[in-house]
Amino acid sequence: MTENLVPVGIYNRHLHLSQADLELLFGAGHQLTPTKPLSQPGQYAAEEVVNLIGFKNTIKKVRVLGPVREKTQVEISRTDSFMLGINPSVRDSGDLNGTTGIILEGPKGQIELKEGVIIAQRHLHLHTDEAAQLDVVDKQLIAVKFSGERGLIFDRVLVRVNPKFAKDLHIDTDEANAAGLVNGAFGEIVK
Amino acid sequence: MTENLVPVGIYNRHLHLSQADLELLFGAGHQLTPTKPLSQPGQYAAEEVVNLIGFKNTIKKVRVLGPVREKTQVEISRTDSFMLGINPSVRDSGDLNGTTGIILEGPKGQIELKEGVIIAQRHLHLHTDEAAQLDVVDKQLIAVKFSGERGLIFDRVLVRVNPKFAKDLHIDTDEANAAGLVNGAFGEIVK
Repeated sequence: MTENLVPVGIYNRHLHLSQADLELLFGAGHQLTPTKPLSQPGQYAAEEVVNLIGFKNTIKKVRVLGPVREKTQVEISRTDSFMLGINPSVRDSGDLNGTTGIILEGPKGQIELKEGVIIAQRHLHLHTDEAAQLDVVDKQLIAVKFSGERGLIFDRVLVRVNPKFAKDLHIDTDEANAAGLVNGAFGEIVK
Repeated sequence: MTENLVPVGIYNRHLHLSQADLELLFGAGHQLTPTKPLSQPGQYAAEEVVNLIGFKNTIKKVRVLGPVREKTQVEISRTDSFMLGINPSVRDSGDLNGTTGIILEGPKGQIELKEGVIIAQRHLHLHTDEAAQLDVVDKQLIAVKFSGERGLIFDRVLVRVNPKFAKDLHIDTDEANAAGLVNGAFGEIVK
């Protein structure tokens, strides 16, 4: 059942910026410079990078993804959070109320972000037609199985359905490393 | 069924040294200084730490576990391996043939280790009586389930049975972070 197979996209630490925060970090009127398209239509990796300054350490040159969003959002792994010395929650993208803050540093300035740092909940992007074919709905939690020497089943994979999405399972580097996965690996939806 | 519950022991990067390598790194006649007992009877964290020098970076102050072993063995996470710039295999402890090397640095010298770096295969230590009670045998592969917001089922958990062992599921930091676990969490054997 090939429709039950989902490709894996491994997300390293990255951030999305609001236009206001982009200008505070990179200068007035600054526009993001796209360098590489991502799996989701219209999304891209930008040339711009930012330093994340935590209580314990700084992680340098963290990639900005575009286009700009309404609110700035920083996505890191639990491993990163230990290095930085902060304690973010596991959240769905955009669900930022009450989340942890951090200091962002760009070439033109620093921002003390009050909230916006999350560990992204593992999630499966699906086009509306793919969701119908798989008989799953937006915000449903499903399970996805991986084989191999570090085989595991990820429970609580959040399904996100949108006519602008393409089938892609987004996990972070901790999850990919725990399962022994590289970009382009395939998992099987087992619900 | 409380006998199906297993406590989690999260292993950060660490190494075991042969007596010969211990002396090369810390000086002739050096003996390990135990500081903290581990979950497995007779095993301990030592005061001694060693630097791991990879192709890309050095990871400093990596803990030595005692007592000394016949062969030196370095256990790191996949995340660590990317930082170091080396590519170790996932292996059962002691299965070191053809594994990756690294440079070890102690206060009295360096060693170029030809092999011995592994990513430890997730495994469950069981006393012989516990294995009998659970109806599993040495080297069997089982599955262990964790709930919570990053819930998952680890497949391919290697069972190791020995009258000197105590029930403890050993996973590395990537696996713990992917599952949102801390030391002392409990998983359920689901076979």
